[in-house]
Amino acid sequence: MTTPSETQVCVLGLGLIGGSLMRAAAAAGRTVFGYNRSVDGAQAATFDGFDASTDLDAVLRRAAETDALIVLAVPMPALAIMLTHIAETAPHCALTDVVSVKKAVHDEVRAAGLLPRFVGGHPMTGTAHSGWTAGDAGLFRGTPWVLTVDEHVDGQVWTTVMELALSCGAVVVPARSDEHDAAAAAISHLPHLTAEALAITAAEIPLAFALAAGSFRDSTRVAATAPDLVRAMCEANQADLLPVLDHTIELLTKARDSLARRRSVAELVDAGHSARIRYDSFSRPDIMAITIGAENWRDELAAAGRAGGVIRSALPTRDSRR
Amino acid sequence: MTTPSETQVCVLGLGLIGGSLMRAAAAAGRTVFGYNRSVDGAQAATFDGFDASTDLDAVLRRAAETDALIVLAVPMPALAIMLTHIAETAPHCALTDVVSVKKAVHDEVRAAGLLPRFVGGHPMTGTAHSGWTAGDAGLFRGTPWVLTVDEHVDGQVWTTVMELALSCGAVVVPARSDEHDAAAAAISHLPHLTAEALAITAAEIPLAFALAAGSFRDSTRVAATAPDLVRAMCEANQADLLPVLDHTIELLTKARDSLARRRSVAELVDAGHSARIRYDSFSRPDIMAITIGAENWRDELAAAGRAGGVIRSALPTRDSRR
Repeated sequence: MTTPSETQVCVLGLGLIGGSLMRAAAAAGRTVFGYNRSVDGAQAATFDGFDASTDLDAVLRRAAETDALIVLAVPMPALAIMLTHIAETAPHCALTDVVSVKKAVHDEVRAAGLLPRFVGGHPMTGTAHSGWTAGDAGLFRGTPWVLTVDEHVDGQVWTTVMELALSCGAVVVPARSDEHDAAAAAISHLPHLTAEALAITAAEIPLAFALAAGSFRDSTRVAATAPDLVRAMCEANQADLLPVLDHTIELLTKARDSLARRRSVAELVDAGHSARIRYDSFSRPDIMAITIGAENWRDELAAAGRAGGVIRSALPTRDSRR
Repeated sequence: MTTPSETQVCVLGLGLIGGSLMRAAAAAGRTVFGYNRSVDGAQAATFDGFDASTDLDAVLRRAAETDALIVLAVPMPALAIMLTHIAETAPHCALTDVVSVKKAVHDEVRAAGLLPRFVGGHPMTGTAHSGWTAGDAGLFRGTPWVLTVDEHVDGQVWTTVMELALSCGAVVVPARSDEHDAAAAAISHLPHLTAEALAITAAEIPLAFALAAGSFRDSTRVAATAPDLVRAMCEANQADLLPVLDHTIELLTKARDSLARRRSVAELVDAGHSARIRYDSFSRPDIMAITIGAENWRDELAAAGRAGGVIRSALPTRDSRR
């Protein structure tokens, strides 16, 4: 059996994230090949010296023959059809994804009968750009890469995916799919919606763009993301996004009333400052003392991730112990 | 008479903005001296080789004797008392400010009887830090620095203040005080409030800080600003902040309902993306063909600023023409 770090990597979808992953894995010395639906993207990747094809069936046969780790890097709407092909051609490969919403992906993977070899993933990175040409081998360096530790997860597959994330330079954060989705709603999907609202509001004020500087640029940066990507992640995470959106609207409405009646935004500003300061001092201890595959390993990893812990170098697995 | 660029600069308040201005003006070869209320700040500035004092009366007498340009760089609540001292000791000096809200400052200056020699100013820059030690001579480089062109404004004083902003490396945006305040509400004060709300919302979700990456960091960056400063600018701009805050709440509420009922955030996301793209392509033509002090010069500058124009090198003034 190959060790995890020798496992070949098969990337399906060579956009910003998939394309960056292909570059990062190759830079780390991994054998990596991939599929892209558009000829343009596949040709650009090939031109840059990578092993890319538009022939999904051939790519999946190769994945099955080499027992590769398959990485789903397609947008949410393309996931179901991709999973159908995998179930037909490469059902025994280890499988992960880099799509943002974890419960929705989990449900699709289960529907395709591929859950036993699946570990969900989500690198917490990105830019406002998309496509192969926007990719960057350094995109994952130092960023949190969530790997799911739901009940069904297999230790060997988890180790294989952990090795990929670490070889791309990321730090691994273990989390339950449902906890990931609630957190992603608050720290990613919600800021996208406020960025859109701020951009629209400013665009209607004469002189606003003329004066716009750091506060506006930073707070609306993600509004430059392709609308389809923003919609896909927000709408797929509807159930977790609604409560945090409601909470933010409620906070702003209370501040509005306080500003109108008492000319004060003290309550919002004091609480916001203290929350942001807590974030700035949030510590990220290394997770080191957990063995993958040992009793309760999933629960222990989920608890460690919740407490801020990250995996910076490969954890031992039960099967690798002597 | 001294030319504007030979005018000495007297900075009142050596915090982030005043302290950066002192450094930038000195780096540009200007003679600059200043006052700071706290002994610590004045001593730190003196230690760094600058001409700083805690003796307000002595500093203002020197400003009067040298016909210096006085720059008000104190927080809004300290403005009235500072203006009283200026009116007593240095009432004939050219006067500007770097406080964020322009109508409120204008009203205070008028109440002190100092309007004839006053031009309001607002460098659109800052960091989340404060105090002398946070200052940076490069803070203004390339950033828009608003100078007011209200009806009362004197051409000679305007030229003097324009020269200061340009020598600090800024580009000058001419604007009416009321238009400035409406724009500042949309592009600065409002993003501070959304940043606070986003930080509070995320802080209540387990795992959120563990996953927080670029979107969250950028969208909440300004929540790290000292609460007193955020309150001072938001509360002083109550009248202009309320309508843009209402508009943003309305946009988010409509998106919330659409997400809940139709699982779609298309309307918000499409409009936000298009607004942000318009901002990214907003052009900043040079203002060159307007002479300060010529007929309708204030109206012409206000119109040019509204259209995105900036002053990158000193405009001629009527008195300087041969």
